[in-house]
Amino acid sequence: MIKHALPVTREADFNAWYQAVISEADLAEESGVRGCMVIRPWGYGIWERIQRLLDDRIKATGHENCYFPLFIPLSYFEKEADHVEGFAKEMAVVTHHRLISDGKGGLMPDPAAKLEEPLIVRPTSETVIGAAFSRWVQSWRDLPVLINQWANVVRWEMRTRMFLRTSEFLWQEGHTAHASEAEAREETLKMLEVYRSFAEDCLAMPVVAGEKPENERFPGAVATYSIEAMMQDGKALQAGTSHFLGTTFSSAQDIKFQNSAGELELAQTTSWGVSTRMIGGVIMVHGDDDGLRVPPRIAPWQIVIVPMLRDNDEDAALVEYCKGLQADLAKLSALGEPVRALLDLKFGKAAAKRWSWVKKGAPVIIEVGGRDMAGGNVSVIRRDRLYREDGKLDSAVVGKDEFAAQAATMLEEIQSGLHSEARARMDANITRDVPDFAAMEAHFGKGGKPGWLEIEWSKPSGADLDKVVERLKALKLTLRNVAQDALPATGACIFTGAPAVERVLVGRAY
Amino acid sequence: MIKHALPVTREADFNAWYQAVISEADLAEESGVRGCMVIRPWGYGIWERIQRLLDDRIKATGHENCYFPLFIPLSYFEKEADHVEGFAKEMAVVTHHRLISDGKGGLMPDPAAKLEEPLIVRPTSETVIGAAFSRWVQSWRDLPVLINQWANVVRWEMRTRMFLRTSEFLWQEGHTAHASEAEAREETLKMLEVYRSFAEDCLAMPVVAGEKPENERFPGAVATYSIEAMMQDGKALQAGTSHFLGTTFSSAQDIKFQNSAGELELAQTTSWGVSTRMIGGVIMVHGDDDGLRVPPRIAPWQIVIVPMLRDNDEDAALVEYCKGLQADLAKLSALGEPVRALLDLKFGKAAAKRWSWVKKGAPVIIEVGGRDMAGGNVSVIRRDRLYREDGKLDSAVVGKDEFAAQAATMLEEIQSGLHSEARARMDANITRDVPDFAAMEAHFGKGGKPGWLEIEWSKPSGADLDKVVERLKALKLTLRNVAQDALPATGACIFTGAPAVERVLVGRAY
Repeated sequence: MIKHALPVTREADFNAWYQAVISEADLAEESGVRGCMVIRPWGYGIWERIQRLLDDRIKATGHENCYFPLFIPLSYFEKEADHVEGFAKEMAVVTHHRLISDGKGGLMPDPAAKLEEPLIVRPTSETVIGAAFSRWVQSWRDLPVLINQWANVVRWEMRTRMFLRTSEFLWQEGHTAHASEAEAREETLKMLEVYRSFAEDCLAMPVVAGEKPENERFPGAVATYSIEAMMQDGKALQAGTSHFLGTTFSSAQDIKFQNSAGELELAQTTSWGVSTRMIGGVIMVHGDDDGLRVPPRIAPWQIVIVPMLRDNDEDAALVEYCKGLQADLAKLSALGEPVRALLDLKFGKAAAKRWSWVKKGAPVIIEVGGRDMAGGNVSVIRRDRLYREDGKLDSAVVGKDEFAAQAATMLEEIQSGLHSEARARMDANITRDVPDFAAMEAHFGKGGKPGWLEIEWSKPSGADLDKVVERLKALKLTLRNVAQDALPATGACIFTGAPAVERVLVGRAY
Repeated sequence: MIKHALPVTREADFNAWYQAVISEADLAEESGVRGCMVIRPWGYGIWERIQRLLDDRIKATGHENCYFPLFIPLSYFEKEADHVEGFAKEMAVVTHHRLISDGKGGLMPDPAAKLEEPLIVRPTSETVIGAAFSRWVQSWRDLPVLINQWANVVRWEMRTRMFLRTSEFLWQEGHTAHASEAEAREETLKMLEVYRSFAEDCLAMPVVAGEKPENERFPGAVATYSIEAMMQDGKALQAGTSHFLGTTFSSAQDIKFQNSAGELELAQTTSWGVSTRMIGGVIMVHGDDDGLRVPPRIAPWQIVIVPMLRDNDEDAALVEYCKGLQADLAKLSALGEPVRALLDLKFGKAAAKRWSWVKKGAPVIIEVGGRDMAGGNVSVIRRDRLYREDGKLDSAVVGKDEFAAQAATMLEEIQSGLHSEARARMDANITRDVPDFAAMEAHFGKGGKPGWLEIEWSKPSGADLDKVVERLKALKLTLRNVAQDALPATGACIFTGAPAVERVLVGRAY
């Protein structure tokens, strides 16, 4: 039996395993500040890669980045609260702007420095960006406005889980305003597709892109779309959303323009975002019992070279040999970018370093000892094929130049291999032929990893939908989305027996 | 006389001119939130360029990026307040985590959701990063720790000025811990040099790098170094700082390690940062009466192509012609990176677009009309040489291919030209031979742009230094820094008559 690198397996306790990956791969840690995490270099490096690749795609679709204030005056939310039912109230409220001595050796908020109007730490920037749009948009000539922001936001959370649900998180939020509904709807779907292809191509994370049912819409949205990814425990993770907001926000915030006929019209707006939550998805899609496996496209280092130093005279030559390899690799291009190769010269034993990089999930780990060097070789460990059939670590001795010649292809193979593996798992865990509610109940009652069901339904609305949601809730299930590529409905609604109108995904979710 | 593009000149009112550049170049605007600005796409694009170029240099010197919480518990500041005299108390204090209805149609902080311990929006992350270092560092093998963070921070400001002094601003803060004082001092100077060369090479902004006098040290620092830039009104702008913190923070935060002899030692720490303030510096160093002039290295778009469309059949061919040029330019490399060329197809008249790009400060503006196209030409405007001697706009008709062949060199010329111009101005405005205090008084009393004086002084400390600072304050002057390359002192202290020990820069400052 293989002795894996993590203290707990996915099978034994998926939640404990998730925490173990985060800790053992040095991705993040508790900060001592309630609900906020410290994102450590390897975790932040993955976020930087996500930012770079997604930002390129956001810019390529015509958007520009801006920066809006961290603080939003309370009154901005009052406007919104008027018409938005699902108004989220759990927010960090700034009430004072000074600390003074409390006379007991400590500090306290200065009562004389109480703000006239409290400021809210942005939970999202819809309101403050809407106010800017209202200033910027006067005429149809000013449209469309296509902007994006990378920022930190805060939503007070009682129960937090690193990357998946933290009080502070990092994200991008796109906000656009358009002259016509058709154009705004097109934008909403365009960005959904950017997210879908980004998740598949860069994160190697297969997703289902589709529209969320009415009860799962962003408050104020006319339509909300999502990408849903399947974790290895069969649960869904909503990994990105794109909203068509119609005129809900433009009427609340007075985003009006003179159309070409000279009439005043409300702009049609959209918003869309993804967050550090995606890293939680990457962990739960690609991690194994030895830690994380980072897809090469988002790996801060794709190839890590570990010289087996022995504190002797041979070390200098070994380091030179490794530097030569690093230089050769740096000349290569893989997956459309220069290869990122690290020479790990930090203090520590080579074996400990090897396992540290295994747990971190560097796609390829190269070990070089004196014998390797003497033969002009290197020892290659592929993180996606860690063990041989006999359960031993699969470290292949290969000629140094031969490895360099294969390295780019190897990285591309690992990227697509991780994707195929996850895609096969997701496909195998979506069950499509569910005759009735009892069968659904039985499916989710059977234990194991039931995955998702694609069921036919009559797409009820209002109170009828609430009843459906309640019935699902009793099974700890939620409606995920209606896949864009779902087949048309042909049978009866699993909830009401009425003719079905579409196929919706149902599952447990994070 | 030239009719310039801005409503006010530098000469007439430098402060009003500064605001006009920010507004007319679409860099930033008031947000409606006290002390916070909206950074618009052109301004944010410059910041993104600064981030990219500086981040590369920070990583090349061995640092890794992390992310630490926005909020810092009040008690963390109590530890620090103990020993840090200059403790800044103007901070945003979060006291509640929920909003509820106030019963009058509005919202208010929920009294039931008062935090047990108030949270402070980070004014800097020294304390929370120190706490992490304390967890991470156990042994000399864990050192050095070399990390950096790009983040927003908040310091409550009563009087704000866009980019120069805002309540919220964007910055990077580097924090490092070392086993020896020598290594920490070396790090402090290494990052000072990174800032100096970055300012000169990328921002084309000449600076003086040197140590700040004792009264200008960061609270708790053993030594503070800065880069000081000279604005066109002769005032100084501190554009970056690097601090050697000794064991001040490691003793407050218990950052201890076992040295190789097995003894517990306090780590030696440093910190260093630059912020969006740099953009204020770029404006005041390179701007002219027609707006901003962005150095090509940090220009979001280096070359902007404006087709002179006429809403007729010729437009399509003109756009194709311009696309051809854009594609040719995209193949070029200038200043070590691919050339960034924009084809401006937004709605609007060509002349309005031209002036908009002049005010924004795009380094090169290419206009293409039907006649240009017919002759295989383009009309080239260099932002650094906007007018001919006769005061007319200098738009040169050049063969399209000829322009493409020169473009990279032209951008490099503009980059170095802006630097030389600023360098000559700074050098001309540092006065070095000041016999006594009366002469200094006279110099700064003469009106105009007195620039800086480099004076000899005896480097007094404590109460003696306070007296010097008071005398300078009466003339609205501050001590800037002691240039690293200053000549040794040879005369008497301008303040005390005692033998001088070094030469320090004195000037008015932002």
